[in-house]
Amino acid sequence: MKTLNIGLVGFGTVGAGVVKILRAHADQMEANTGLRLRLGAVCDLDLTSDRGVDVPDDLLTDDVESVLADPEIDVLCELVGGTTFARDLILRAFDAGKHVVTANKALLAEHGRELFAKAEQTGRSISFEGSVCGGIPLLRAVREGHPGGEITRLTGIVNGTCNYILTEMAERGADYESALAAAQDAGYAEADPTLDVNGVDSAHKLAILARLAFCREIDFGGIHVEGISGIKPMDIEFGAEMGYIVKLLAIAKLAEGELELRVHPTFLLGDHPLAAVSGVFNAVWIRGEATGDTMHYGKGAGQMPTAAAVVSDLVDVGLGRAAINAASCRALSSRLEPARIRKISEIETQYYMRFTVLDQPGVLAAISGILGKHRISIDSAHQAERSPEGYVFVVMIAHRAREHGLAEALAEIDRLDVVKAPTQLIRIER
Amino acid sequence: MKTLNIGLVGFGTVGAGVVKILRAHADQMEANTGLRLRLGAVCDLDLTSDRGVDVPDDLLTDDVESVLADPEIDVLCELVGGTTFARDLILRAFDAGKHVVTANKALLAEHGRELFAKAEQTGRSISFEGSVCGGIPLLRAVREGHPGGEITRLTGIVNGTCNYILTEMAERGADYESALAAAQDAGYAEADPTLDVNGVDSAHKLAILARLAFCREIDFGGIHVEGISGIKPMDIEFGAEMGYIVKLLAIAKLAEGELELRVHPTFLLGDHPLAAVSGVFNAVWIRGEATGDTMHYGKGAGQMPTAAAVVSDLVDVGLGRAAINAASCRALSSRLEPARIRKISEIETQYYMRFTVLDQPGVLAAISGILGKHRISIDSAHQAERSPEGYVFVVMIAHRAREHGLAEALAEIDRLDVVKAPTQLIRIER
Repeated sequence: MKTLNIGLVGFGTVGAGVVKILRAHADQMEANTGLRLRLGAVCDLDLTSDRGVDVPDDLLTDDVESVLADPEIDVLCELVGGTTFARDLILRAFDAGKHVVTANKALLAEHGRELFAKAEQTGRSISFEGSVCGGIPLLRAVREGHPGGEITRLTGIVNGTCNYILTEMAERGADYESALAAAQDAGYAEADPTLDVNGVDSAHKLAILARLAFCREIDFGGIHVEGISGIKPMDIEFGAEMGYIVKLLAIAKLAEGELELRVHPTFLLGDHPLAAVSGVFNAVWIRGEATGDTMHYGKGAGQMPTAAAVVSDLVDVGLGRAAINAASCRALSSRLEPARIRKISEIETQYYMRFTVLDQPGVLAAISGILGKHRISIDSAHQAERSPEGYVFVVMIAHRAREHGLAEALAEIDRLDVVKAPTQLIRIER
Repeated sequence: MKTLNIGLVGFGTVGAGVVKILRAHADQMEANTGLRLRLGAVCDLDLTSDRGVDVPDDLLTDDVESVLADPEIDVLCELVGGTTFARDLILRAFDAGKHVVTANKALLAEHGRELFAKAEQTGRSISFEGSVCGGIPLLRAVREGHPGGEITRLTGIVNGTCNYILTEMAERGADYESALAAAQDAGYAEADPTLDVNGVDSAHKLAILARLAFCREIDFGGIHVEGISGIKPMDIEFGAEMGYIVKLLAIAKLAEGELELRVHPTFLLGDHPLAAVSGVFNAVWIRGEATGDTMHYGKGAGQMPTAAAVVSDLVDVGLGRAAINAASCRALSSRLEPARIRKISEIETQYYMRFTVLDQPGVLAAISGILGKHRISIDSAHQAERSPEGYVFVVMIAHRAREHGLAEALAEIDRLDVVKAPTQLIRIER
């Protein structure tokens, strides 16, 4: 029987979930795999809060040094979060000869190169299935299910909070603020939801997915990110009339050796497989040259789904699969060439625009004139409802165009005296 | 650089797809993984047909003995199909010290135990991602994404031919015969579609999935199998009125240590994630205790998706992951306890029944009386259209009931003089 001794650092929600799974399933796992997963230490500054699961007193510690120094610990399971203490902890764990399992997406997205380099240098592995779309075994699908870098496109709903909010808005006609409040009440949004609703959390996950899918170093700063807080019920209603549903999408496309990497609210046609993904569910849709289109769907967050992903990584470490991955998967190395990431101004798509304007003659002509000057051709225009301040909303759909011209046009339009708020843009994808 | 020498036996559609992927992606795969996939032999009785891909003459052979005897060949890739020659070939390949990659679902479902035992005995691995839902990396998701045997339920649309036919019937109002003809015209059904439409192909895949998900030996004969050829457009219309869509489902449920394993036409509510899976697409929906519900979706068959799965297995062999799986995954051993499979008469669900009866007074009363006697309670009854022979169709929905009583009632009903054809049953699942 093989035994893997685990040093768990960060006994929060996910950490408690990992302990629960080990309690409930370690015997069955041992029977199924021949591997014993054994908790060697559980470390947290808070040793007293009730996590709904018992840990023997002699395993609990608030001294992370003792975990790092313990030669019995094979793998450090980092569930602290954040990019400062956690980063230092992981680097030191490698130096101490331990493998690492983490669910820390921000750290991997922003400091991946440094972590992978250290893992290589020390001959250890780093596994992170829990960092992206928790309960869905997505990273192994991307890494192992698509031999030879045949992925050309990857599109995902990777933030359950945003998807819950947008679903509430679409299904109940709620406005953004009350949908966010509903998400908070239901426990699907943090008290401070900033990183979810502004798209940064989705961008972290996109950076990790793109690294594995395209085997390129991803500069996190190169990802274009927009959030959902500007979306109004009327945008959703207009979209619905045209057959569209709005989702916060994380998009990665390979084109002529360059990558498009962007996170923004997006209109999808109702029959797109991602359009049916509602509530807190996540899904990632992958186009491969040989595999065709596949989609992986499930709970992307929450205590138990994320903990299950972390435990699947611990099994990989214990069985030696993580070591094989570390040695053979170039996407897990620091030897990657940086991706050439397209500027958002270089992409080409279709656009929905909502203008907030004074209700007076000539406004539509002024806007259309500027769009025309920048060679943005309009498919349709609608005068929508009146704003509480007495302005009117005008909605236009632009044909496929390069974003460079569109952005210049919108900047010019937003400077007009008759335009009273920044224009809301929703890109349309197929 | 590691090199894996491949002996490919069976140069048909999927075999040619494997060769195409190796041609197009071997360099990129080597760059990404450090592994060279090298064709050592391509064996088929037919050496002359054009497969749309060139193979050097010195690799082509019609002599399988030379492939088995070649000490340079590391892995035998069995793409012959069938359960006689292929079985013998795989057993002999193990004896010759080779690993095996196969996409042969019938063989694995019906002779899995023997193959796994031989693999163990000879210390070799057998990989078979291509056998179930081709382009979807599903088996690795089941095997590695759900540590500790936490899967409680698995429901799939695993036959693209049937799903195409049922989609045609639902979307175009086609009858079964013309939908089947359309599937054949589109290349989605074989000239002899028997194993697809009678549900046996789905049952083969269910046997493989259930083995991995529940870590139990599955007696293929214990799976209850019904096909789709009895489904009429009126069944689909009635279902639609009640919010249901019909799918051929492969269902595995764990309950009180026993397994339900069945393949049959099934009504699902329109908002079930599987209800939106249309055309030739496949999807498998998995419920795990910790992971919650996940779903994997994609092209389940076809040359390139299946070939991509086969190549992903070859990479697993070359990198050593297959050996780890063989050594550590008890579901891949011959040491499994047999599953206790529930008889279909023991299951409990809801039912849609279509009776073909004479149009005369008292018929409904006779049928209702028999159902009542067997304690089957009726939710609703509808008189449907008239048959070409002048009979009428009567549709009834039964509340949740044990199938034992229902089967007895239907047997009695089908013996009535006024009943003119066997009753069509469609089970209703949530």
